[in-house]
Amino acid sequence: MGIRVAVAGASGYAGGELLRLLAGHPEFDLVAATAHSQAGAHVTAVHPQLAGLDLTLTATDAAGLSDADLVFLALPHGQSAALAAQLPESVKVVDLGADFRLKDAALWERYYGGPHAGTWTYGLPELPGRRELIAASSRVANTGCYAATITLALAPLIASGLADPADVVVVASSGTSGAGRSAKVNLLASEIMGDLSPYKVGAHQHVPEIKQATGATSLSMTPVLAPMPRGILATVTARRAQDGDPREALLAAYGNEAFVHVLPEGAWPHTAATAGSNSCHLQATVDVDSGRIVVVSALDNLGKGAAGQAVQCANLMSGLPETMGLSVFGVAP
Amino acid sequence: MGIRVAVAGASGYAGGELLRLLAGHPEFDLVAATAHSQAGAHVTAVHPQLAGLDLTLTATDAAGLSDADLVFLALPHGQSAALAAQLPESVKVVDLGADFRLKDAALWERYYGGPHAGTWTYGLPELPGRRELIAASSRVANTGCYAATITLALAPLIASGLADPADVVVVASSGTSGAGRSAKVNLLASEIMGDLSPYKVGAHQHVPEIKQATGATSLSMTPVLAPMPRGILATVTARRAQDGDPREALLAAYGNEAFVHVLPEGAWPHTAATAGSNSCHLQATVDVDSGRIVVVSALDNLGKGAAGQAVQCANLMSGLPETMGLSVFGVAP
Amino acid sequence: MGIRVAVAGASGYAGGELLRLLAGHPEFDLVAATAHSQAGAHVTAVHPQLAGLDLTLTATDAAGLSDADLVFLALPHGQSAALAAQLPESVKVVDLGADFRLKDAALWERYYGGPHAGTWTYGLPELPGRRELIAASSRVANTGCYAATITLALAPLIASGLADPADVVVVASSGTSGAGRSAKVNLLASEIMGDLSPYKVGAHQHVPEIKQATGATSLSMTPVLAPMPRGILATVTARRAQDGDPREALLAAYGNEAFVHVLPEGAWPHTAATAGSNSCHLQATVDVDSGRIVVVSALDNLGKGAAGQAVQCANLMSGLPETMGLSVFGVAP
Amino acid sequence: MGIRVAVAGASGYAGGELLRLLAGHPEFDLVAATAHSQAGAHVTAVHPQLAGLDLTLTATDAAGLSDADLVFLALPHGQSAALAAQLPESVKVVDLGADFRLKDAALWERYYGGPHAGTWTYGLPELPGRRELIAASSRVANTGCYAATITLALAPLIASGLADPADVVVVASSGTSGAGRSAKVNLLASEIMGDLSPYKVGAHQHVPEIKQATGATSLSMTPVLAPMPRGILATVTARRAQDGDPREALLAAYGNEAFVHVLPEGAWPHTAATAGSNSCHLQATVDVDSGRIVVVSALDNLGKGAAGQAVQCANLMSGLPETMGLSVFGVAP
Repeated sequence: MGIRVAVAGASGYAGGELLRLLAGHPEFDLVAATAHSQAGAHVTAVHPQLAGLDLTLTATDAAGLSDADLVFLALPHGQSAALAAQLPESVKVVDLGADFRLKDAALWERYYGGPHAGTWTYGLPELPGRRELIAASSRVANTGCYAATITLALAPLIASGLADPADVVVVASSGTSGAGRSAKVNLLASEIMGDLSPYKVGAHQHVPEIKQATGATSLSMTPVLAPMPRGILATVTARRAQDGDPREALLAAYGNEAFVHVLPEGAWPHTAATAGSNSCHLQATVDVDSGRIVVVSALDNLGKGAAGQAVQCANLMSGLPETMGLSVFGVAP
Repeated sequence: MGIRVAVAGASGYAGGELLRLLAGHPEFDLVAATAHSQAGAHVTAVHPQLAGLDLTLTATDAAGLSDADLVFLALPHGQSAALAAQLPESVKVVDLGADFRLKDAALWERYYGGPHAGTWTYGLPELPGRRELIAASSRVANTGCYAATITLALAPLIASGLADPADVVVVASSGTSGAGRSAKVNLLASEIMGDLSPYKVGAHQHVPEIKQATGATSLSMTPVLAPMPRGILATVTARRAQDGDPREALLAAYGNEAFVHVLPEGAWPHTAATAGSNSCHLQATVDVDSGRIVVVSALDNLGKGAAGQAVQCANLMSGLPETMGLSVFGVAP
Repeated sequence: MGIRVAVAGASGYAGGELLRLLAGHPEFDLVAATAHSQAGAHVTAVHPQLAGLDLTLTATDAAGLSDADLVFLALPHGQSAALAAQLPESVKVVDLGADFRLKDAALWERYYGGPHAGTWTYGLPELPGRRELIAASSRVANTGCYAATITLALAPLIASGLADPADVVVVASSGTSGAGRSAKVNLLASEIMGDLSPYKVGAHQHVPEIKQATGATSLSMTPVLAPMPRGILATVTARRAQDGDPREALLAAYGNEAFVHVLPEGAWPHTAATAGSNSCHLQATVDVDSGRIVVVSALDNLGKGAAGQAVQCANLMSGLPETMGLSVFGVAP
Repeated sequence: MGIRVAVAGASGYAGGELLRLLAGHPEFDLVAATAHSQAGAHVTAVHPQLAGLDLTLTATDAAGLSDADLVFLALPHGQSAALAAQLPESVKVVDLGADFRLKDAALWERYYGGPHAGTWTYGLPELPGRRELIAASSRVANTGCYAATITLALAPLIASGLADPADVVVVASSGTSGAGRSAKVNLLASEIMGDLSPYKVGAHQHVPEIKQATGATSLSMTPVLAPMPRGILATVTARRAQDGDPREALLAAYGNEAFVHVLPEGAWPHTAATAGSNSCHLQATVDVDSGRIVVVSALDNLGKGAAGQAVQCANLMSGLPETMGLSVFGVAP
């Protein structure tokens, strides 16, 4: 018999991806999936891609979740804290929301509003020393999708001393599932197909999370909404602090990682190559005109950017092989 | 130690999907992958979604394949026969091309040109009595992608007597990977995005294959190229031959199948829900104005329409569980 | 000084396209554009593609429209009748909704619900004798977008006696703007991109309109939602009633038309080629297996399928050249 | 009788857009359109969106073009110079290629290879004093598409002293028509849909053009290929050199321009809003974390980025109203 897991907030896109991964996981038994307005619906009425999975969504409350060994919270930002407080300490929790990511309460309040709920172990296993922390934790705050993409690109550059932490400029484009499953006119297919548009320019809520995770001290980040359902491509540039090959710094950091791939020289990341997988693809160079370091990072915002990463953390927290139930390979074309 | 498998024609889209499935298959060991102009290239230079798979493509010849227990041929139509003739009888073969699908040599020559190479066991396990035939065969001709989509919708309607085999009209739209990986101007992204266009109108080469597999005697099929990378949606209509609920006929045929799902009443197939999976989604009704039966069928042309189906057949031929290494669930959104 | 025109329902997609066409029209002066929840907004807040047009949306009521010489109604189905009843008889009206299209009150009530408001001159100028009727009318009911696409393909086949009006099967795919600008989850970009799905299978409200306009007596129509913002592609098949070349029948009907193009032999319609234009592209053949006539028709659902057609009718009603302010050429790629 | 114009290189995407604009232009008479491998083809065989235009492509040579008053060259980079040299001085020429854009021969040779052909009047009318220069020229070098997008955003910031010309970082994403109409595997729809990928990272050939046009002295530019047929979105960031509102600087530069729109506060550019138009949309802010100026610019790479800009220049060179035959409004959705 396996480890009993449950998903709170299973009707959204990250929730659906969690269900897909958990339904195929060799050791996790999916015992409950909860939703708000969709409670009572069969899972396939909400996620038609799960035809063949016999599961009915239940209401989101602590009672329905406490029976699990491990709970994934895939709730809107600001809703995890209240629910997590009601779960027994013996239940392990991975929160896909932002509630417990930041150490600095003032920053949390500025970017998200409302009181700061606390700080959990930050769930990015490929950061130095972090997978051991995750394995030893019963509460883990999963990374934001932009934060995962950008941190994997930037952290080794700053840690190695190659990049100036005070001069980082990022432009990152995300597929639409990153904006969630809300019925909004600006997210309609008619508005999105054929369109690129920036949003939250000059003040994105992932900036403090990225600075905390990478050590950057000044970071300009412009997010762009792109006409594709999944994927984030981040172009991370930084002033050089000292000589050295940025690609070598990435290789040194990730050479043994299963899910983070520094591509062969000359090959640049494609978001489509990461779709459906838990992989992140990286490449780096130095710009000939400006001398800036340029790192490009791609991943699936629902995979390594959300549900895949959460399962990776849950594997670690459960003493399972870190890669279990996760795909290294993308579904392309 | 597992069963040794090889893929000939690994540089195309179906070949890449085969590699993805085989690399994650618990019992198949991928021992060779061959290509024509890409021989010598690392697999990730051709299929960036396979980053993490250490494999070099070799030249397509019998010598490099004879070492395998089972070979998948994913070659252009008309090229399988010559290669298959050089493989030892002891090597099992699944051909994803058209060479061995048709029983009628004259029809083969009319639609494909050149001499007819022969007829192998037709590889659609969900047809009555067929999975036993496949399991007993060492040579299997995988279905065409349109043929799989349309046959799964139509065969039970004709077999049950509900549909008139002499009056079938089909319009089926395919994603672009169905057109292969050839560098052609009409397949460029600039030409395709925002565009729907029919092709081979009035005479598609899958028509005789579908008639052979379903018993239809007259079939009008119009294929349409759709702006998406994967997926086929077929709308199959037929004159009613007798009263009866077409949805019940589908349920009777597929109620126990792992990969063929008759959707709940009121739900209609979405190609996106099948992406990356080996599933086919079906729904049926009777048109109020004309009284015709309307069945809609969706699947992933590279999954159940090609590579997934091939692995399903290979599982059967190898005495493995039929569903091994295949996903029931799609990657959506 | 030009002819004063107004648009009621200017915040939707058809309304936005009307504004684009009218803002560039040499003889129409746009004097008012009304909206419901967006009343008071600057037009560019609703339609960013109209940057450079200085116009504020006003509330939708008869008072704000009565000052115009001609009013376009681009309202949800069922809302035109009440507003039209309040407009002076001297004001010409083109209704883009369905309220006044059908002659048969019972059919209107079955497909749309509510009482039948009446019947106006049907606004498809390329039907025989119809442009004279439109020119002489002060109230015109614009075609539905599917109806325009299918009627242009089918009417000459039935009128010429080539096609059996009792055996017509149509599958037609539409871009998402045809579904309107409502905030619905199933129209989100994340759900649509990469997806084809049928809807209203077996009973679409355009069927009686098409039968009325073409003389078809039995018509199976399956609509499909396609991952593109604009365009309809209809595959219209019919049993042959007598020998004869269907392409010749189309040429005889449309040889002198500015906006309806029978393509050169061998060329088939592409929806992308009609984007932004008022053109419809047609091609026909006879299916070799079934002997059925196959006609494929493409147009821009917001152009010839809605706003373009409405301006064409308005030109006729105003004594202007029929093509004024409309583009024959599509914006492609 | 109008001004006689011809297009050399009419079979590509920019060439097709030129034909569309010229066919609808009130004063330009299209007398010849030339192509290389497509010479002899009817224009609609190459550009189906031009159905209704009766024109046959002829071979590209000086004899066929010398009869025109003004010639547009839409040839691959490096091919304009030889042809231009054979045209009589009395024929005005707008070159859409790169041959004559750069003043610095060494930079031309480094980025494009081959000998530098010379320098023509740079064709960006909205730069200070430039429309008068264009009007007085008989030879004009049209801007590159990235260069137009970025220069319109950046030039006023540097000219006003707000931005440090030595610290500019740009990430710009382009639709696929910017990559031309070559049959290449990496431009296939199957590879592009659902994908974002950077290219020419660290060394793009438009960098010297942008520096020349804006006065920037150090510029990191990363281009990204986006899954849409048209449009460029550039995110231009620069270190602040002095206090001041960057949006005010844009308004001061473009307040009276017909085609360059500084959007209302809070609204950010959408590429889709510019499709088919000759407009550029701009917005600016200051990033709260880094203090950098962020300007986002959107235009249609085939419109203001190529053919539209060329017609605008040709209007000026011909003494016509600058906006004639060009649309301010985009075709959206």
